[in-house]
Amino acid sequence: MIRGRVIGKIWSSRRVDSMPGGALLEVETNDGGHLVAFDPLGCNTGEAVLITQGSVAAAYFTGRTAPIDALIIGSIDEEIPKKTRK
Amino acid sequence: MIRGRVIGKIWSSRRVDSMPGGALLEVETNDGGHLVAFDPLGCNTGEAVLITQGSVAAAYFTGRTAPIDALIIGSIDEEIPKKTRK
Amino acid sequence: MIRGRVIGKIWSSRRVDSMPGGALLEVETNDGGHLVAFDPLGCNTGEAVLITQGSVAAAYFTGRTAPIDALIIGSIDEEIPKKTRK
Amino acid sequence: MIRGRVIGKIWSSRRVDSMPGGALLEVETNDGGHLVAFDPLGCNTGEAVLITQGSVAAAYFTGRTAPIDALIIGSIDEEIPKKTRK
Amino acid sequence: MIRGRVIGKIWSSRRVDSMPGGALLEVETNDGGHLVAFDPLGCNTGEAVLITQGSVAAAYFTGRTAPIDALIIGSIDEEIPKKTRK
Repeated sequence: MIRGRVIGKIWSSRRVDSMPGGALLEVETNDGGHLVAFDPLGCNTGEAVLITQGSVAAAYFTGRTAPIDALIIGSIDEEIPKKTRK
Repeated sequence: MIRGRVIGKIWSSRRVDSMPGGALLEVETNDGGHLVAFDPLGCNTGEAVLITQGSVAAAYFTGRTAPIDALIIGSIDEEIPKKTRK
Repeated sequence: MIRGRVIGKIWSSRRVDSMPGGALLEVETNDGGHLVAFDPLGCNTGEAVLITQGSVAAAYFTGRTAPIDALIIGSIDEEIPKKTRK
Repeated sequence: MIRGRVIGKIWSSRRVDSMPGGALLEVETNDGGHLVAFDPLGCNTGEAVLITQGSVAAAYFTGRTAPIDALIIGSIDEEIPKKTRK
Repeated sequence: MIRGRVIGKIWSSRRVDSMPGGALLEVETNDGGHLVAFDPLGCNTGEAVLITQGSVAAAYFTGRTAPIDALIIGSIDEEIPKKTRK
């Protein structure tokens, strides 16, 4: 997986029918690259995230064939989690 | 996925039989690379597009084995969509 | 897919049994990289070609498991095709 | 596969449900890149490791669909193994 | 596929159970990168080899799920093969 930080959201009104509904976030990776990932977690701009790529990302969508090759699978804790954190 | 911009069209008269009919567009990615993607949406030169890669792209072609490893899955809205936009 | 130009041929006398018979061409990609692709079309040195990569390339070989991760799927027309071109 | 060295651990409290339980280690690859890999072996910071990537990494998790595209498959011996090493 | 040259051997005493028995060779690719590939051919240090990557490499291991994403599929002939070559 790779680490990245959310820098924005992508809007695409005209797209293929098999695209799943949900947010497409633009992410800057820790090595300085850029990619667009599907976000099932509701992440915000500035949030540090963990991204999986390739057919592994598409396999997240069970029972359908989604044309998604990058998926946010977690929000990275940037401090030691505290009990008060929800 | 990666963002890119359509910079031209590729013609290939001599090709493998399993190639699906349709446009092959040359795209410059936002990180400065170049690739050729199958376009099911009828995009134009200069248009900003979203591209999925690898076996995920080939899986778009249901019921057949297409030798396609890059697919345009959306046209990126470059302004906030307006109600008048169709 | 990526564009490239054929720069030579690779010979491998000692190889795994599952390698399909046919030409292995060395290709320089348009971004300056190098790879070796299986060629089902009979391309020549200097010819501009379109290459698909990954499991999509192996899937071209139906009914068998070929260890091929790069496949030439088309010869790129470098001029506007003319009726006289065969 | 690629070689790398463990440089830390990633914590992600908010993550997709299909994420398998276990350590996610941050690894610096020998070519200077960074990635996050699932660790089934209990590796330590500073340890040299061997990493497999892509759908091959996810296939390690039999009977389930794990969104893991990088897996530590071995700890690299940095000296010639001795009989006394366990 | 990519070309490379064998530069050494990797030893891993502590590894996942699904790792197939056999040599893991360190290879320098022609573009200057480094990777570790499974070698079913018994190649030597200094030998020029052809490598396939990704799920295509794992598919070489029929009837089992091997966590191998890079496989040497051939030794590259560096001179025109002679009849005396064995």
